[in-house]
Amino acid sequence: MTAHRIALDVMGGDHAPQATLAGAREALAAWPELRMILVGDEGRIRPLLPGLGFTAPFMDRTHVVHASQVLDFHDEPKAILKEKKDCSIRVAAQLVREGQAEGMVSMGHTGGAMMASVLVIGKVEGVDRPGLASLMPNLQGSPTVFIEVGANIDSRPEHIAGFAIMGAVYAEEVLGVKEPRVGILSVGEEDTKGTEVTLEAASLLRGHPHLNFVGNAEGRDIWNGRFDVIACDGYVGNVVLKSAEGIARLVKDGLKEALTANLWTMAGAAIVKPALMNFFKRLDYREYGGLPLLGVKGVSVIGHGSSDARAVKNGIGAAVRAAEGRLHDRIQARMAERMPGGSNGK
Amino acid sequence: MTAHRIALDVMGGDHAPQATLAGAREALAAWPELRMILVGDEGRIRPLLPGLGFTAPFMDRTHVVHASQVLDFHDEPKAILKEKKDCSIRVAAQLVREGQAEGMVSMGHTGGAMMASVLVIGKVEGVDRPGLASLMPNLQGSPTVFIEVGANIDSRPEHIAGFAIMGAVYAEEVLGVKEPRVGILSVGEEDTKGTEVTLEAASLLRGHPHLNFVGNAEGRDIWNGRFDVIACDGYVGNVVLKSAEGIARLVKDGLKEALTANLWTMAGAAIVKPALMNFFKRLDYREYGGLPLLGVKGVSVIGHGSSDARAVKNGIGAAVRAAEGRLHDRIQARMAERMPGGSNGK
Repeated sequence: MTAHRIALDVMGGDHAPQATLAGAREALAAWPELRMILVGDEGRIRPLLPGLGFTAPFMDRTHVVHASQVLDFHDEPKAILKEKKDCSIRVAAQLVREGQAEGMVSMGHTGGAMMASVLVIGKVEGVDRPGLASLMPNLQGSPTVFIEVGANIDSRPEHIAGFAIMGAVYAEEVLGVKEPRVGILSVGEEDTKGTEVTLEAASLLRGHPHLNFVGNAEGRDIWNGRFDVIACDGYVGNVVLKSAEGIARLVKDGLKEALTANLWTMAGAAIVKPALMNFFKRLDYREYGGLPLLGVKGVSVIGHGSSDARAVKNGIGAAVRAAEGRLHDRIQARMAERMPGGSNGK
Repeated sequence: MTAHRIALDVMGGDHAPQATLAGAREALAAWPELRMILVGDEGRIRPLLPGLGFTAPFMDRTHVVHASQVLDFHDEPKAILKEKKDCSIRVAAQLVREGQAEGMVSMGHTGGAMMASVLVIGKVEGVDRPGLASLMPNLQGSPTVFIEVGANIDSRPEHIAGFAIMGAVYAEEVLGVKEPRVGILSVGEEDTKGTEVTLEAASLLRGHPHLNFVGNAEGRDIWNGRFDVIACDGYVGNVVLKSAEGIARLVKDGLKEALTANLWTMAGAAIVKPALMNFFKRLDYREYGGLPLLGVKGVSVIGHGSSDARAVKNGIGAAVRAAEGRLHDRIQARMAERMPGGSNGK
């Protein structure tokens, strides 16, 4: 068993540092190969550890690295380059750059974490634009890798083709899917349907020797398990992801309202509650814990600001699996395969 | 009470002609001002009418117009111009063009119905691209007008601005919303967030004298009632709409599976079933019956192929309300207001 060192941005997220530290402790218990590097305000972190169950055996696998600043939600991402050079997100990225950690996990400022990953850790050779992937649940088995959702907008066709290839590597190496079925998000199944950009992206992937490219996917295919990987520009990906969050809220609020309408429905609701909870758990983003940023020279997992300890734990778990799979090396190899002698459309 | 003449493409839809005729009969009962023009194969239609309750008083308000052809789902939309000039969709559009009907309703070939509406009925002066709008349910009251969802792709900024203005007229005239709150679908609330196209579309609407333009909307805002109208390109709109359909299916299938897991949950499910049905009814597309195509010189409502009689009835109802509101005249006036002396960026 090889040890895997993961740096956690302890200060990032709405419930930091309690939720991040509690999640780190749960992750240490779940993955014996994990070495945890806690990045943040050492003076705040150290006193919290004993109360959160960081006993001696766990402390042996834990290291605290001080960062004097925190990137707030109202900061611009680029503040990591100047005013907030010593923020926890950037210090975590620096540890990955220097090889002291194989990966970083942040539930903090999404734009800041993306910028730190791209500029500090750096891009994989052959990758022009790293892409944030989301795992979308369905009822068929492994989730659909949906990339790009990080507001990586106005993508050119070669960027979207790159997202598709990186998503396929993730499905293979981390989710264990053999020959993942890959699609480009479009408005119809037929090859002739799509925008100028999606048609060109599809033509770049068609006939790719090492990719099971199926063709166009539609909006409904994100949720039905017909594809393992669906690639698109970050504008549409971000809109679809936030739309899905909006629908989830609508369904939860509406069901709650319907089921608590009177004593009779409340009695029925009490009976079905475990089944409903079980169902919602299958659709819960916290099960995946965070979104992998693909195409950087190391592991980077970016979580939801509202992450609780369970989400943090699962985000760290995703980073451990990505580190095990040497994801970025595989991506580099696959991108080189794509165009053996030349550039990748930079 | 003014009579409103609506032409129904009886042959369109998966359950035609039974579902379309049954829906027409329900609509006649619901709206006394409705005069129904049934367009399709007269030899098939006439024998079905008595059995579907078209008694003498209803027949007095019903007219059958023969069309010898049907546009099938595997036909290209442009077949309406040549091989299938006498298909029911085109004949219905022709009746609107000639003033014999104020509006048409079709549950058939979406692309064909859009093409017939745009080319046969014609575009409102000042409108370059008509747009298909969808009504998205939320828990706050009137639905959100989400436009464009008809795969009207690679829109330019002025097209999206036009969708926003037409959507606002629909919200006012048909849904009765005063000073509808209008947004452009983007990746963040801040004015600086967006693609090149959405930023330019927003700048065209900002400061518009007769529009309550709020700014950027996000994906979640489609479902929370914070906006009355959200405009976007037809690629992203189509993807969001189909994604929502996919989620609805996932939730329904998942809930069913969870609630029928064993006898105990089935007993609980039996108790909560009416409440659940009531909730799903609030989210059911059949309540709206069809999507209005805005920007053509007449009323055009395009429904889902799987429409049942209730959806057909509600689609006809949407057409009656649009005819009452003289929607296309209002849109023409509003588009002229936008740029008093000039073109609309054609």
